[in-house]
Amino acid sequence: MQPFRAEVEQRFRDLRDRIVAGLEALEPAGAKFNRRAWQRPGGGGGEMSELRGELFEKGGCNFSAVSGERYPFVPEGEGAPAAEELQGKPFFAAGVSLVMHPHNPFVPVVHMNVRYLAVGSDVEWFGGGMDLTPFKPFAEDTAHFHGVLQKVCGPERYARFSRWAKEYFFIKHRNSERGVGGIFFDYLRGKEDGAFAFAVGDSFLPAYAPIVEKRRGLRFSEADRAAQLRWRGRYVEFNLLYDRGTIFGLKSGGNPDAIFMSLPPLVSW
Amino acid sequence: MQPFRAEVEQRFRDLRDRIVAGLEALEPAGAKFNRRAWQRPGGGGGEMSELRGELFEKGGCNFSAVSGERYPFVPEGEGAPAAEELQGKPFFAAGVSLVMHPHNPFVPVVHMNVRYLAVGSDVEWFGGGMDLTPFKPFAEDTAHFHGVLQKVCGPERYARFSRWAKEYFFIKHRNSERGVGGIFFDYLRGKEDGAFAFAVGDSFLPAYAPIVEKRRGLRFSEADRAAQLRWRGRYVEFNLLYDRGTIFGLKSGGNPDAIFMSLPPLVSW
Repeated sequence: MQPFRAEVEQRFRDLRDRIVAGLEALEPAGAKFNRRAWQRPGGGGGEMSELRGELFEKGGCNFSAVSGERYPFVPEGEGAPAAEELQGKPFFAAGVSLVMHPHNPFVPVVHMNVRYLAVGSDVEWFGGGMDLTPFKPFAEDTAHFHGVLQKVCGPERYARFSRWAKEYFFIKHRNSERGVGGIFFDYLRGKEDGAFAFAVGDSFLPAYAPIVEKRRGLRFSEADRAAQLRWRGRYVEFNLLYDRGTIFGLKSGGNPDAIFMSLPPLVSW
Repeated sequence: MQPFRAEVEQRFRDLRDRIVAGLEALEPAGAKFNRRAWQRPGGGGGEMSELRGELFEKGGCNFSAVSGERYPFVPEGEGAPAAEELQGKPFFAAGVSLVMHPHNPFVPVVHMNVRYLAVGSDVEWFGGGMDLTPFKPFAEDTAHFHGVLQKVCGPERYARFSRWAKEYFFIKHRNSERGVGGIFFDYLRGKEDGAFAFAVGDSFLPAYAPIVEKRRGLRFSEADRAAQLRWRGRYVEFNLLYDRGTIFGLKSGGNPDAIFMSLPPLVSW
């Protein structure tokens, strides 16, 4: 492995450790993420960390670093390298991915991912994103979340990447956004883009934890809970039908248990 | 509409009526399917019928007959017409589709579909299938189900179509069949294939109802129920990631509520 890959891998591990510690600190009765390493038959592997807590009914924060002989994905979207640059070439992919499903319907679901990809010997990029999916949106929470993202992105990137999130986190068959948006970016190939991706990762806790603290005490009814379970169906639909990370993971022979950690603990249709 | 299309449409409606009546007769406390018509903005529509009963926690038996200006699907699999014969041409699609999710974990989930497609002025075919997905398979139930299918297919078709089902109802990312199989067929363009497709539709009740009667009284524990909810996740994964009907429906602007009637009522991951 090239030295840069080893360094990137270590930085993702460290990011994961900081986030896991920050989320565990929110759990009232000391629930901890349960870590499990997995190996990918084709090369590499990862460490999944799953939380089944009191505040978080289910959450996952996964680190992975996989490599393979043939990049299995057709690139799509703004800034994507040409198909010929990628198809059939050896690849390396590393990143951190998290989704948290709180028990209380008034605490929003959140997703964050940052990733590094290298394909062949010339093409490499960073990608990622973060979005908030409240069952019942509070304008003040949306403003806080986007405010943190605005700060980490700066105005130009925020304008581009929040528009990209609006398009990406969109449930086409329901003609509806998944939640209240956030940022999404991919194929960032500039010199400073690694630093930016890691800064996004480190903005997750300040963007999310204050919202959790503000909403965790709200009381909810059985009807709210039933509506939350139905509403979670949309999250499953998005992840299995449209989400690039899920589809990349499954097509590249990733571990289904790690990939489906993003799915809610209990869902109704 | 051509006279043949109107006739096919009526035959599918009648098939739906017979099946709905047969399934309602199994419900112990008189639960009935709830029918709702829907219109497709691009042309046609359907009638969904949903059951929320005591025996069947959730079930759907949908009739649809939709048409559109451009066939939205890339044909794939054994016997598929060439892409040029289909792409961008006007189409008509009609059929009946059902999925039943029993409450008792020992009563198997079942799926059945028969459909007719016409694309452009020259290409038309029948397709369909039926498969059984028991949480805990009983060899005797599997033998009964396949026995009925063997009879309606005859030996040559049964050999081909049950092999096709093994390939089709396969959850690739879990490297596992969805259940204990059944039959799957598509692109049947012979003169007698319409009669065959409707015979398959009418074999559904004799294939399934005796299994329901045999297993409905079995007692189950809370642990069985929890395991059933986790196991149902595989069904969702299959339908959203691989199922042609679901993907065709969503891509052709079908009604998501009708399409997702196939999804289990309560699922855990």
